[in-house]
Amino acid sequence: MWTESSEVAWNKRYGEEAPRIDPVHAQFMLHRSVRHFAEDLLSKETVQSLIACAQSASTSSNLQLYSIISVADPGRRAQLAELCANQAHVLRAPLFLAFFADHYRVKQAGTAVGEQCSGLDYNEFYTMAVIDASLAAERLVCAAEASGLGVCYIGALRNNPQGVADFFELPPGVVGLFGLCVGVPAINKDASLKPRIGQSSVYFEEKYRSSGLGDYDLRMSNFYDQEGMKGDVTWSMRSGRRVGESFLTGREALLPFLHKQGMDSR
Amino acid sequence: MWTESSEVAWNKRYGEEAPRIDPVHAQFMLHRSVRHFAEDLLSKETVQSLIACAQSASTSSNLQLYSIISVADPGRRAQLAELCANQAHVLRAPLFLAFFADHYRVKQAGTAVGEQCSGLDYNEFYTMAVIDASLAAERLVCAAEASGLGVCYIGALRNNPQGVADFFELPPGVVGLFGLCVGVPAINKDASLKPRIGQSSVYFEEKYRSSGLGDYDLRMSNFYDQEGMKGDVTWSMRSGRRVGESFLTGREALLPFLHKQGMDSR
Repeated sequence: MWTESSEVAWNKRYGEEAPRIDPVHAQFMLHRSVRHFAEDLLSKETVQSLIACAQSASTSSNLQLYSIISVADPGRRAQLAELCANQAHVLRAPLFLAFFADHYRVKQAGTAVGEQCSGLDYNEFYTMAVIDASLAAERLVCAAEASGLGVCYIGALRNNPQGVADFFELPPGVVGLFGLCVGVPAINKDASLKPRIGQSSVYFEEKYRSSGLGDYDLRMSNFYDQEGMKGDVTWSMRSGRRVGESFLTGREALLPFLHKQGMDSR
Repeated sequence: MWTESSEVAWNKRYGEEAPRIDPVHAQFMLHRSVRHFAEDLLSKETVQSLIACAQSASTSSNLQLYSIISVADPGRRAQLAELCANQAHVLRAPLFLAFFADHYRVKQAGTAVGEQCSGLDYNEFYTMAVIDASLAAERLVCAAEASGLGVCYIGALRNNPQGVADFFELPPGVVGLFGLCVGVPAINKDASLKPRIGQSSVYFEEKYRSSGLGDYDLRMSNFYDQEGMKGDVTWSMRSGRRVGESFLTGREALLPFLHKQGMDSR
C-alpha cells in the first residue's frame, strides 16, 4: 500500500542512512496511523479472514484470553465515538473493532468441568490477557496493511471503562483495551512516517543500559514543525506532560474497574 | 516459509471449509511456535532490521513504553534458561530477545525538563506499556516469519520477576514481560498449526455474546491425540486447571514486584 523503500523508511524513522535491509521487511516498517478512509465497506469474507489472522497469533498456553467486537450500527457508532473522546474516525471508519481482555470465556468453560479458576484475579492473568489481545490485534493489523488497508488504534476506549462495559454489555472478567479503525486509506491524506527513538536507546545487548535519547528531541521538533504542530516543544516535554496525572482523561478509573471485574487484585 | 494455502490453514484452525480468503492473508494465518532451530546465527543487519519493524508498530501517544534486550553470551543464556522454567529452546535459539514494559526512559526524559510524570503509577500506564511492547513484538514476529524465520514466545520470563530484574539490571519502572526465541526453523521438526476457538465464540457484532465453545473441546481432544499428548483431556479441563492458583509458577510475585517498581499501584 505504501510505496517507500525500506531505506527511505529507515531514514524517516531514525534520521540516518539505512544498513542493508531484507526488502521483505519494508512492508512492516511502513506503518502509519490512518484516520481518513475511503467509504468502501469491507466484505464479510475480508473481516472473517482478518479475524482468522488475529486468532493465528501466539496465545499463552492456548488460553485465548481476548474477544473482539465490531460496531457497525451508525447510531451505536456515534455513541461509541462519544465514549472515545469524540474522534471523528471512530464515527467514520468502514470497520471498527474493539479488543477486550477476556477471562470470562475460560472461567465459564473451566467451572463447567469443575475447575476453580482461582488464579484469574492475579495480575499475571490480566497481563497475559493484555498480551494475548495485543498480539492478536497487531497480527490483524499487519495482515490488513499487507492487503492495502490502513488502521488507527484507539486507546481512548479506556477513557470510560464502565461506560464501555455498559455499551458492550460486558460480563465479569472482561475489560475494553483499545479500538481499531480499519479501511481503505483516503487518497491524498497520506499520513507521515513518524520518527522513532534511535535503536541504541530502545534495544540493548545483555543488560539494560540507560543511554538517553540521542538526537530524538531534535528530530521530533523538526517533525512537529514539518507537520504544522507546535514546534516549540520537544518529545521530552510533550511526553513528560502526557504521563502526568492531568492527562489521564478518565483512565484513573481503570484499576477500580478491573477490581470490580475480578481482575488484577493480587 | 510455511507452505499451506490459506484454505488449509483455515481448515486446521477451525475444522471447517474456508470462505473466500485474500491469498495475501495466508502468511499471517500460518503462525506456529517453533522450538527447534538450525544453528545459523542472524546477521547484525537482520537484527537491526527486525528491531526497526518492531519500532514501526503503533505506540500510544508515541510514548514508546518498552525496551528490548538480546542475550547472546552462552553462560548468560544458561542462567536465563534457568529463570525461564529450563526451556531448552531458550538455551539454543540463535537469537533471544526479551521484551520489557518501560516507564523509566520517559520518566528520565520528562523529569529532566521539569515534568512530574506523576501518572505513571496508575494501571493505565502499565496497561499502555504492555500493549506497546506486545504490538512491537508481534510486528517483529510477522516480519521475521515473512523472511523465513520461526519464533516462540516465552511467557516464563514472568516466572521470577525479581530474578529477571537482577539478571538484566533493570532500573525502577521496568518489568520483564516475555521472551522471544528467533531462528531458522530446523528441517523435519515442522510444528503443527493449532486449532483455535471458532470465530462465533471470540468475535461478536455490536455486543458481547456468551456463546459457549461450539465443537472446540472435541477438536482439541482430537488434536491432543494426533500430537501424542494426553487425549483424555479437553481444552476446558486443561485451561480451567491452567488458570488455577497452583499453576502460577512464581508469577504470583508479579503485582508485588510491579508495586516495587512504581507501577500498577492505583
